[in-house]
Amino acid sequence: MVNKRKKISVIGAGFTGSTTAFLLAQKELGDIVLIDLPNAEGPTKGKALDMLEASPVQGFDANIIGTSDYQDIKDSDIVIITAGIARKPGMSRDDLVQTNQKIMKSVTKEIVKYSPNSYIIVLTNPVDAMTYTVFKESGFSKNRVIGQSGVLDTSRFRTFIAQELNVSVKDVTGFVLGGHGDDMVPLVRYSYAGGIPLEKLIPQKRLEEIIERTRKGGGEIVNLLGNGSAYYAPAASLVEMVEAILKDQRRILPAIAYLEGEYGFNGIYLGVPVILGGKGIEKIIELELLEEEKRALEKSAQSVRNVMKALV
Amino acid sequence: MVNKRKKISVIGAGFTGSTTAFLLAQKELGDIVLIDLPNAEGPTKGKALDMLEASPVQGFDANIIGTSDYQDIKDSDIVIITAGIARKPGMSRDDLVQTNQKIMKSVTKEIVKYSPNSYIIVLTNPVDAMTYTVFKESGFSKNRVIGQSGVLDTSRFRTFIAQELNVSVKDVTGFVLGGHGDDMVPLVRYSYAGGIPLEKLIPQKRLEEIIERTRKGGGEIVNLLGNGSAYYAPAASLVEMVEAILKDQRRILPAIAYLEGEYGFNGIYLGVPVILGGKGIEKIIELELLEEEKRALEKSAQSVRNVMKALV
Amino acid sequence: MVNKRKKISVIGAGFTGSTTAFLLAQKELGDIVLIDLPNAEGPTKGKALDMLEASPVQGFDANIIGTSDYQDIKDSDIVIITAGIARKPGMSRDDLVQTNQKIMKSVTKEIVKYSPNSYIIVLTNPVDAMTYTVFKESGFSKNRVIGQSGVLDTSRFRTFIAQELNVSVKDVTGFVLGGHGDDMVPLVRYSYAGGIPLEKLIPQKRLEEIIERTRKGGGEIVNLLGNGSAYYAPAASLVEMVEAILKDQRRILPAIAYLEGEYGFNGIYLGVPVILGGKGIEKIIELELLEEEKRALEKSAQSVRNVMKALV
Amino acid sequence: MVNKRKKISVIGAGFTGSTTAFLLAQKELGDIVLIDLPNAEGPTKGKALDMLEASPVQGFDANIIGTSDYQDIKDSDIVIITAGIARKPGMSRDDLVQTNQKIMKSVTKEIVKYSPNSYIIVLTNPVDAMTYTVFKESGFSKNRVIGQSGVLDTSRFRTFIAQELNVSVKDVTGFVLGGHGDDMVPLVRYSYAGGIPLEKLIPQKRLEEIIERTRKGGGEIVNLLGNGSAYYAPAASLVEMVEAILKDQRRILPAIAYLEGEYGFNGIYLGVPVILGGKGIEKIIELELLEEEKRALEKSAQSVRNVMKALV
Repeated sequence: MVNKRKKISVIGAGFTGSTTAFLLAQKELGDIVLIDLPNAEGPTKGKALDMLEASPVQGFDANIIGTSDYQDIKDSDIVIITAGIARKPGMSRDDLVQTNQKIMKSVTKEIVKYSPNSYIIVLTNPVDAMTYTVFKESGFSKNRVIGQSGVLDTSRFRTFIAQELNVSVKDVTGFVLGGHGDDMVPLVRYSYAGGIPLEKLIPQKRLEEIIERTRKGGGEIVNLLGNGSAYYAPAASLVEMVEAILKDQRRILPAIAYLEGEYGFNGIYLGVPVILGGKGIEKIIELELLEEEKRALEKSAQSVRNVMKALV
Repeated sequence: MVNKRKKISVIGAGFTGSTTAFLLAQKELGDIVLIDLPNAEGPTKGKALDMLEASPVQGFDANIIGTSDYQDIKDSDIVIITAGIARKPGMSRDDLVQTNQKIMKSVTKEIVKYSPNSYIIVLTNPVDAMTYTVFKESGFSKNRVIGQSGVLDTSRFRTFIAQELNVSVKDVTGFVLGGHGDDMVPLVRYSYAGGIPLEKLIPQKRLEEIIERTRKGGGEIVNLLGNGSAYYAPAASLVEMVEAILKDQRRILPAIAYLEGEYGFNGIYLGVPVILGGKGIEKIIELELLEEEKRALEKSAQSVRNVMKALV
Repeated sequence: MVNKRKKISVIGAGFTGSTTAFLLAQKELGDIVLIDLPNAEGPTKGKALDMLEASPVQGFDANIIGTSDYQDIKDSDIVIITAGIARKPGMSRDDLVQTNQKIMKSVTKEIVKYSPNSYIIVLTNPVDAMTYTVFKESGFSKNRVIGQSGVLDTSRFRTFIAQELNVSVKDVTGFVLGGHGDDMVPLVRYSYAGGIPLEKLIPQKRLEEIIERTRKGGGEIVNLLGNGSAYYAPAASLVEMVEAILKDQRRILPAIAYLEGEYGFNGIYLGVPVILGGKGIEKIIELELLEEEKRALEKSAQSVRNVMKALV
Repeated sequence: MVNKRKKISVIGAGFTGSTTAFLLAQKELGDIVLIDLPNAEGPTKGKALDMLEASPVQGFDANIIGTSDYQDIKDSDIVIITAGIARKPGMSRDDLVQTNQKIMKSVTKEIVKYSPNSYIIVLTNPVDAMTYTVFKESGFSKNRVIGQSGVLDTSRFRTFIAQELNVSVKDVTGFVLGGHGDDMVPLVRYSYAGGIPLEKLIPQKRLEEIIERTRKGGGEIVNLLGNGSAYYAPAASLVEMVEAILKDQRRILPAIAYLEGEYGFNGIYLGVPVILGGKGIEKIIELELLEEEKRALEKSAQSVRNVMKALV
């Protein structure tokens, strides 16, 4: 029995894709293939080589290659999709959805061709609809096609709470349901500092401000950067999901999962708490919701459905 | 006795500066201040916030702020200078040197004002002359003003050798003297894989090709990227030096140090092996050189002196 | 400003003390002094040397020495007390208390003499009374004298819950108040898996069995070992507390703290949630308790007071 | 494709075995089975449980079980043998060899039965002869049966050199051939600090003292402990070898390998530099030796052959 490294392919070599590649390599989770379009082949190779050249100093053993040839992703254990465009000024939401849908379809064809046994994690926005697209196009079982949004949303929330209370981020937890950003359904009653419900530690009004800041967390970074969007925290979030799968950790994490009856929804990808382990989404955890939470989740699902209507 | 976190300021919030900030925070080496010009304040703050938002997921406790106000670097334990311009097409070398010299002077004034007890590590090119400029401008003792180039050069060399031999980067070491890049003086006889001199493992001709590739290592990345230069490996190299100092590790690393008689040179900053510990450069290690190595080092020093002539 | 390593002294070189020393060194939290009685000097030195000889392979830089000479603990930043005897068959509890009290007093005198600015963490049982003894004998401010029990109790609880639910230990949290072991007051309503209250995931009866197993957790190991008691989990717990202090992490952790009015108690050391940071116990977090929790905590306090009566 | 954790079984739950189990779990290299004789079942289970209870605080996900039932090692990826007796006063060497040979045979039968595809690493002394015994008894291919001694010997050597020079252990390397301890053949010309040959940094006489101390390194710890032998550094050495195999790192490490013509020896297990990767010993690296080194290696081999004569 030969011990082989895992293989992880990251599609899209922008800031998020390349940061993800680096963080994965740092943890020696496997060998990395960073892939982008032929017209970006130079920068893709350049970033991969630069990362590799950091490996002796950072002390990790992982091969990292940059490529534009999908043959190189052959037999990946996990494929991460960060490819896609961001909404540009003047672009309608439907245009965005359809452009990225086209990209998802084309990318998924390659994944199916070269890595038919892989797990796919989708980051591209609008992430619920894009994960759905990849799921349908791939024909993979639902446990193997997963969207990322909740790990990032809760990481931002935890950051703001830790700052507010001036305590370690290690001791703050957060909980969200539903879609990304504006559609996020925070479950404050399941969010804690040192195990203590946040509602006992932070006044309601201030908590609402922090939730609102979390909702707009992506936009806050976009506004500051002026050009481009967040990539460190999104990359770190992807890496946590990959680690949970490859190390079969059975983490309880929020993920965008395909619902078939859970929480009363069917045939839709939506953010819910799951057990993420060696078989991908091993279980969707169903919680009893309060009436207002149900309404917020329904609203979030409606918003996803509206986006899905734009799918071709 | 109150235990306080160390404080590390990174001047220049481009790719290298921000990657350095993130890698420092990951290792919980201290709180981080990322600083750039007022006109880049938004992006600087945006990157810092994005990194901070990765901390809950990556599991580190470190404050990271972005700023354009030098008051924020107050009482830093270490200051890293990555600020400066890269040579643009049509720009003479002297123009580059003088522009960056001006930046070094202005930056150093602020460091002296706000962090008079700090250690300074310089990355800005041409790094030997820029480190010299900072040394003179700061009035700091020579052990506290250090340039980076050899950690990066050897990291690249180790990467190429590990690939050539198909072995772990953990078991390959390299050794360089002199300046950065083209002026690099590789000591192959002091470079090994698993302790075995490389000359016994790799044919001379191939070894020379790898050395040549290492010399041009920065350019290789620049050419691939098309726009901009390497940042992962440079950042990792800076972090290794910071860690050696803050944890008083007494590492033996190549660094750009001020020579006062060592290797026969005086009043010049040049790459030599040093002991890097809690007092910065604690010792310069002098080696007996072969005649050809002496000549190469002299050539490298001459090249540094030529650059220094352009200093105002 | 010279960067110096922190210094941590571990008093008592038995299994817990030596394991603690090793785990501290692994994390490069500082240089380690392992100290025991003159008649155990050989083994103490032997263990320290063996650990040190593991450092190249494990990749940490930390000096580790074994000694029986208290001068060697001079200027420690943190001192950990694991010294003391375990109750032997036929020994009355009062005998145990008084023997260990004597040891605490003698050890504390040395700490005060050689490391007057240190923080002290006490592990020796009965830990509430022993921490009180060290506090009184040292004359140190209350933030600097801390007992360990809750980190261990919750770590055991988290282990059992993670096994029960077959999920990652990373996503399970627990919460205890009061004394160690039998006197432990678990706050199940503040204990979660993935943020979900355990009461929603595990039937009440099964939860009670797990709590009972946690209470008897120390005894379970003692019975299995036949000779001696647990040391891996206790050592890991001490290390987490040291890290919180030296890195000023402001963790929210359960610790044995000196109460002056909090929770209605005065002049007693009892397990409560605290903020542990660079100034030791920076804050005691007061929670509103349910009536039954209040009663349990009062019972726990009474039990501590009973032990304290045996103090000379 | 389901991602499963690797499984590592450690035979012998004494200090070395249990420390090895803990260090493996810390690195999340796989799930751990710690196994010892039925009469030690309690302590074996106790240690395993104690380690597991440290996992929430140390932040690792790994199952650790203690057992005396060989069925539990089923389908291990790697099996480590630490079982065996130490030489007691008055015991002849032949008695020791034959007793441990018997243990190796019995243990190997179980490994072949339950984990026929595993890699085996042997630590039991006299390690060359014991590895040979396991090799013959198992019928496994030679790349899959490996003895440990050189990683430990060089780790001790590196420790002493780092102390002598007052530099980081990270920058010191050592190189040995041949047997363990007294039979060790140090190649000082292949041992360095910061890449600089030790002979240039330390006077010959002092270097010889340090080599002699390394040879007697095991005995030094035995003498200090009074009872028992070293376990931290041996455990760390085993872990490095396991990591190299499971992560397919292709490390260049000294290991006890089966020679078929290499270095002029045949049908004998002897310490040589190897490439250790996903297929175990992937290559034996042959070096040209100086005459005196050849003689020392021949002497070392003769010593191994003498021990092998005692094998039944």
